[in-house]
Amino acid sequence: MAYELHYWPTIQGRGEFVRLALEAAGAAYVDVARGPESSGQGMPAMRRHLHDGKVTHPPFAPPFLKDGEVLVGQTAAILHYLGPRLRLVARSEQARLWTLQIQLTIADMVTEAHDTHHPVGTGLYYEDQKPEARRRAQEFCSARLPKYLQWFESILVRNTAGSRHLVGGRLSYADLSLFQLVEGLRYAFPEAAKQALATTPGVVQLHGRVAALPRVAAYLRSERRIPFNEQGIFRRYPELDLR
Amino acid sequence: MAYELHYWPTIQGRGEFVRLALEAAGAAYVDVARGPESSGQGMPAMRRHLHDGKVTHPPFAPPFLKDGEVLVGQTAAILHYLGPRLRLVARSEQARLWTLQIQLTIADMVTEAHDTHHPVGTGLYYEDQKPEARRRAQEFCSARLPKYLQWFESILVRNTAGSRHLVGGRLSYADLSLFQLVEGLRYAFPEAAKQALATTPGVVQLHGRVAALPRVAAYLRSERRIPFNEQGIFRRYPELDLR
Repeated sequence: MAYELHYWPTIQGRGEFVRLALEAAGAAYVDVARGPESSGQGMPAMRRHLHDGKVTHPPFAPPFLKDGEVLVGQTAAILHYLGPRLRLVARSEQARLWTLQIQLTIADMVTEAHDTHHPVGTGLYYEDQKPEARRRAQEFCSARLPKYLQWFESILVRNTAGSRHLVGGRLSYADLSLFQLVEGLRYAFPEAAKQALATTPGVVQLHGRVAALPRVAAYLRSERRIPFNEQGIFRRYPELDLR
Repeated sequence: MAYELHYWPTIQGRGEFVRLALEAAGAAYVDVARGPESSGQGMPAMRRHLHDGKVTHPPFAPPFLKDGEVLVGQTAAILHYLGPRLRLVARSEQARLWTLQIQLTIADMVTEAHDTHHPVGTGLYYEDQKPEARRRAQEFCSARLPKYLQWFESILVRNTAGSRHLVGGRLSYADLSLFQLVEGLRYAFPEAAKQALATTPGVVQLHGRVAALPRVAAYLRSERRIPFNEQGIFRRYPELDLR
C-alpha cells in the first residue's frame, strides 16, 4: 500500500524532507493534500486527520505520514520511522541514533531560518515585522548559518567511513535533508550561503552528489517538486541577506 | 558506570528534561559541568566534548549524554536513547515512536517559549529586544500556549489505556517532560498558564501525579534541582505575561 504524505500543498516546507526520502527511495506514495477532493484527497483529507476526535495519535501539525494503521507526525520522527523501511538509515542502533541527532540539528536550523522572516510570530505577516526580521536575519546570516554549516562540515570530515556521507558509508535521509537545507539557504540567503559554503567544501560536495542521484535528479525536474516561494520556510527577501 | 550529563551548570534549560528522566528512574549519573574541575569535571570537561577534534560524534550544543563510548546530543534523541534503558518508554516500536513524537512537540513549544524573550536573536540581551519580545509573547500567550496545551489534553483524553499517562498505561519520559513544561509555563507566564490550564484538567492532574512520584518529589526538594531564573528558557518577565 502506498504511503500517504500529508502536507500543505503549495510549499516545500518541512514536508519536503519527507518527500525527498520517499522520492530518493523510489517509494510509492500519495501527496494527499495535493490530490483531488473528488478522490477523497485534498485539504479536507488532511484536515480530517488533524481534527477528527477519533484519531488516537493526532499530529500537532503537518507534515504527517500514514502507513496503513500507523499515523506519525514530526518530520524527524517520520524519517526515523521511514529510515529502515526505505533503507535510508544504517541498521545499528548507534547509527540510527546519530542520524536522528543530525536530523534534529537540521530541524533546529530550519526553524531558525524560518524565524528570520517571522521573528515576532507566525500569526502575523512578514510585512508586519520587517524591522524585527532584519535584526534577526542579521544574526542568522552572520553567526548561526556559518556555525551550523561548520558543524555539518566537521562531522563529514570526521566520518570514519569517509566524507561522502554524514553517517557511515552509504546514503541516509540525513544526507537528503542536508541537501535540502543547502538548497533552501542558497535560495533564501544567496550571499550568506555563498560566503559560508566557501569554507565547507564537504557540504558542497555532498549537496552535489545528492542532486545527481538519478531518482533525486528526476524528481527535481518533475512537477512534483514545488518551486521555492515566499509562502514557505525559505523565502527570498533580499533585505534579509548579507550585503 | 554512571551516565554523564553535560549541560550548562546554572540553569534548568533543556538539560532538565534529561535530568528528570535520570532522577525519576533512580539512575546513577554525574552532572558533569556542575562538578569540580579538580575532579576533571566542570565546564572544561563539557567544552572538551564540544570542541575536541577527535570526537567523531560531536554534539552541536548541550545537553548531551555520555554513556561509556556512546555520546548523544539533542534532548529528544537523548531521551529516545535512555527510554528503554531507564524503563521510561514502552517496548513496542509504535509506542516508542509516539513517545518521540510527543517529546518533539514539547520541544517545539519549549523553543517558542524561549523565543518570547529572545525573538530577535540569542546573541542579544533581552533588554535589547523588549518591544519585540512583548509582541512575540502576546501571540505565544494568547494563541500558541493554549493550542499546545489543548493538544496535550486531547491526546491524554484519547489514550486508550486511560488518561493517567500520555502513552499507554505507565510512566514515560514524555510524562516527565510535560510536567516540566507545565512547571516552566507556570513560572514564566503565571496568568496565561492559569487561564489555559483551567481548560486542560488532564494535563493538570498528570502534572500533579508526576510531582508526587517519590523520586521526583525528593529531587525537586534537593539542591540538585536548580531554581528557575532569568538566564534559563522559562523566565519570569511580568511584562510578557497576559494581563
